[in-house]
Amino acid sequence: MYQYTQVKEEALLNMGVAGIKRYILSLDNHVSIVEALSAFCREKEIYAGKIGGLGAVNSATFRFLDPATMKYVDKTFEEQMEITNLTGNISCKDGKPYLHIHITASRRDYTCIGGHLLDARINGACELFVEDYCLTAAGRRQDEETGLNLYQF
Amino acid sequence: MYQYTQVKEEALLNMGVAGIKRYILSLDNHVSIVEALSAFCREKEIYAGKIGGLGAVNSATFRFLDPATMKYVDKTFEEQMEITNLTGNISCKDGKPYLHIHITASRRDYTCIGGHLLDARINGACELFVEDYCLTAAGRRQDEETGLNLYQF
Amino acid sequence: MYQYTQVKEEALLNMGVAGIKRYILSLDNHVSIVEALSAFCREKEIYAGKIGGLGAVNSATFRFLDPATMKYVDKTFEEQMEITNLTGNISCKDGKPYLHIHITASRRDYTCIGGHLLDARINGACELFVEDYCLTAAGRRQDEETGLNLYQF
Repeated sequence: MYQYTQVKEEALLNMGVAGIKRYILSLDNHVSIVEALSAFCREKEIYAGKIGGLGAVNSATFRFLDPATMKYVDKTFEEQMEITNLTGNISCKDGKPYLHIHITASRRDYTCIGGHLLDARINGACELFVEDYCLTAAGRRQDEETGLNLYQF
Repeated sequence: MYQYTQVKEEALLNMGVAGIKRYILSLDNHVSIVEALSAFCREKEIYAGKIGGLGAVNSATFRFLDPATMKYVDKTFEEQMEITNLTGNISCKDGKPYLHIHITASRRDYTCIGGHLLDARINGACELFVEDYCLTAAGRRQDEETGLNLYQF
Repeated sequence: MYQYTQVKEEALLNMGVAGIKRYILSLDNHVSIVEALSAFCREKEIYAGKIGGLGAVNSATFRFLDPATMKYVDKTFEEQMEITNLTGNISCKDGKPYLHIHITASRRDYTCIGGHLLDARINGACELFVEDYCLTAAGRRQDEETGLNLYQF
């Protein structure tokens, strides 16, 4: 589902002083971004970290939380789009890597749509940077007021 | 105004060789992004750095500098929006942390607006990565041609 | 074409254990983003890395690859825009730094456009973070199915 390489920080890791691991991640064509990123985080055991990058997709589903009704409104766009930016984080929930990803996408007329990403299917390339912060302190708790899974440090 | 955790790089910091400090920052609901980030930078004494992340707001004010008139045009959007991306930097002006932040936001129809951020009020979560570059060399100078506060290294 | 400063990691670099170099880069007014970034990467000999930041431009050309026809559709927008986000990477192709950049830009009505960047001309500031991953393993290969230059690790 992906190819990757890692920044050469073995010297620091071997000294036991490095606080971070960095990867360049290239997702395979036609895969689900969420499935591929989840598999990568499980393989590398990343429980706190940062994700950023760009790509192209032909399907993307966004979730909008309407605060007036506290209802989720999901919408899928089935069309070729460039991901002009993917911004996300990795934390730990129920002992597993937990992804929180937002994307901005440009359509064939170059206008942008975006939002909280439920999932998207790659069509073309998807090139990401993943930083493993090597922390166990970035958990999630259900917040009563918002209904969201907020960070718990 | 915020909760945070820090990447464990004390070993490097204690060796006196680390050039950077990294934080995961979760801003409290209903706070002003600029006020909370400014308070965090003052607490941590960050005078050069990088900010990135995502969130949700119910108010955001953008500033557009019209180069034809050299006039600022500010506009406030009072509605629920996802921050699909927040990109910013921290520098030093008049001895204090100085923020420069742009955001992209998606509306309830998933179309995006954005610009130079004057301020925004969180409604939901706001999860940021802040990197302190531990530099004193990232100041600001008033540029005559553009009227902007440009970096001065 | 640019001013820059570098994160102070000489101690680590001198120990031979640092895996990364970081720069804050301020591009000069009126320059081409691609020309200035290319010149910077050549000066610093960066063959694998990460680019992020914000700015303002008065011209930007985006490329959309239509997967139905496999044809590129390029469009230039000649107007003042804020770059709400620039996301990119540096790899190595034919022995030279190779840039892959997407941008999101907001217009005078604050709506966003964006896409794969062919080039853009700065009008105002352009403040970027460049991270040199000091890798030689991030090459590019022509992919038959997509026609794209994909990462080859």
